[in-house]
Amino acid sequence: MDEFSFIDSIQPAAYSQSSLIKGVSDDAAVFRQSSEDIVTAVDTMVEDVHFSRDTMEPYHVGYRALAANLSDLAAMGSTPAFYLVSLVVPSGWSQEELLEVYRGMRTLANEYHIDLIGGDTVSGKQLCVSITVFGYVLKNKARYRSAARSGDIIFATGTLGDARAGLECIRKGVNDPYLIKRHRTPDPRVDFAKSLTHLSRVALNDVSDGIANEANEIAEASSAELHLNFEQIPYSPQLPELFPSHYEDWVLSGGEDFELIGTVSEKEWPHVVEAAKQTGTPLVDIGRVKESDKNGAVYLYKEGKRSILNKSGYTHLQEERD
Amino acid sequence: MDEFSFIDSIQPAAYSQSSLIKGVSDDAAVFRQSSEDIVTAVDTMVEDVHFSRDTMEPYHVGYRALAANLSDLAAMGSTPAFYLVSLVVPSGWSQEELLEVYRGMRTLANEYHIDLIGGDTVSGKQLCVSITVFGYVLKNKARYRSAARSGDIIFATGTLGDARAGLECIRKGVNDPYLIKRHRTPDPRVDFAKSLTHLSRVALNDVSDGIANEANEIAEASSAELHLNFEQIPYSPQLPELFPSHYEDWVLSGGEDFELIGTVSEKEWPHVVEAAKQTGTPLVDIGRVKESDKNGAVYLYKEGKRSILNKSGYTHLQEERD
Repeated sequence: MDEFSFIDSIQPAAYSQSSLIKGVSDDAAVFRQSSEDIVTAVDTMVEDVHFSRDTMEPYHVGYRALAANLSDLAAMGSTPAFYLVSLVVPSGWSQEELLEVYRGMRTLANEYHIDLIGGDTVSGKQLCVSITVFGYVLKNKARYRSAARSGDIIFATGTLGDARAGLECIRKGVNDPYLIKRHRTPDPRVDFAKSLTHLSRVALNDVSDGIANEANEIAEASSAELHLNFEQIPYSPQLPELFPSHYEDWVLSGGEDFELIGTVSEKEWPHVVEAAKQTGTPLVDIGRVKESDKNGAVYLYKEGKRSILNKSGYTHLQEERD
Repeated sequence: MDEFSFIDSIQPAAYSQSSLIKGVSDDAAVFRQSSEDIVTAVDTMVEDVHFSRDTMEPYHVGYRALAANLSDLAAMGSTPAFYLVSLVVPSGWSQEELLEVYRGMRTLANEYHIDLIGGDTVSGKQLCVSITVFGYVLKNKARYRSAARSGDIIFATGTLGDARAGLECIRKGVNDPYLIKRHRTPDPRVDFAKSLTHLSRVALNDVSDGIANEANEIAEASSAELHLNFEQIPYSPQLPELFPSHYEDWVLSGGEDFELIGTVSEKEWPHVVEAAKQTGTPLVDIGRVKESDKNGAVYLYKEGKRSILNKSGYTHLQEERD
């Protein structure tokens, strides 16, 4: 396949978004959005750093790269609209494999009716997939990490630690299709996040680096204490069976599950429960937000003992003060 | 310098754009633009592919990467507003050098009052700088390659071939500060492009891959014939002196000059001349657009002979038909 046919074959035949004015075919893309705020982020996946060809097919690489980006949009409470793709391609990747990377992205993009509106393909030493996503959100309804308040219920969607466990299943030859899917083709919580639009306030963060990290980001941005109960943090039942000596660490800081952690007032909690039900999203209450006299901190309760949980998932035991 | 201080040091202390709602500090950035259309593009520079540490300092790498992106926005007639930066960083680059990359971007960004609103830094085998830019343009005033019409004057800004010649000066130890600057810190034609806003129609393309390529893109997109006179194509006087056997090739397809090529009706041409005068932009008439009975073609006239000019700058002589 020559370069011309390649570019031709990744160009969308039609676009879904009515706000798009110019897609792929000029120096830049053009869109118009007068009624909503625009949300944008970039996320990059590098071969042998974020993924390996031993554990992912080219299709998975594309799917997972876009999933990570859509998860950022979900964490802002926004609806995805467009994406741009910048590929750095080493000589070891064939055009057929690159088409598979694009097919992976397209599968997820079609599910949410979002359009590929441009990009760049250059050569280099290792495959880098850099995606910029664009989403829309009702004016002043973007959801920030800084919105947690004392008294809030802390919640998490789905199950945590799955992606890390799935990677280990592939490496060890353990046949657990669910966990493996969670590593290769994770599903961002776009529909659930959208359905929280009518809430007056909710803090949201996506679990890309592990809940220990994300909880600390909310605590810092909100200058609040987050008190988490380990026994309530959701994980798949097979994790302790398959990986008894690792699962606790992976649940707290395995990362790349692309679930959401958030906080909401007790008053609005029933609406979150209803949104989860409507969108088929597993949801649990995992703790409470308290006032902080410092710049924010996260505490983890387990078997009656309290520890400080830092960003990397490391805990150290602390005497109960109250 | 630890990672925290590094991220801290690249975060803007303040933002210039009033349309920005949330900059660096959450899962994504948020902005609002109700009155204008939004233009966006991504462009990636890879070490040892697009630049070499032998010929560019880290500062130049950042400056040039953002310049290439702003040139895309200029080619759409839009005013730059924001940028996102995705960096892939190999172990050989120190944090001090990375700060220099950011300083290069910031120098150009400050000139146009545009804000860094997010990004991603990951590790990899070679430095990749991928920038996504966002610009604004009055509704329905984005400038497309497809807008050329029969009878139009074809124009070019600045001088072509400089960037390629500048690279050769560095390699050969030729001390020509102007040409070297054109390679390392090219200035995109943002102000000139903005000042064309009141024109009813203008086709624009930026000269990133050489005028031979860009003229063909306009010809194809507009289904028109572009007739260029080599003698009118602007180049710096020292080019034929320094590089007599290469300059013609570099003028046509050296690339990376980040000048603009465009077409406009004879009626509106005086406005383009005035815009160039107001913004201090060198501007010349280099040919005419004619109707095409095919899918577009570019002809080059030189010393009374006509050739077909293809995208890569290769010409082959053609008998005059008229």
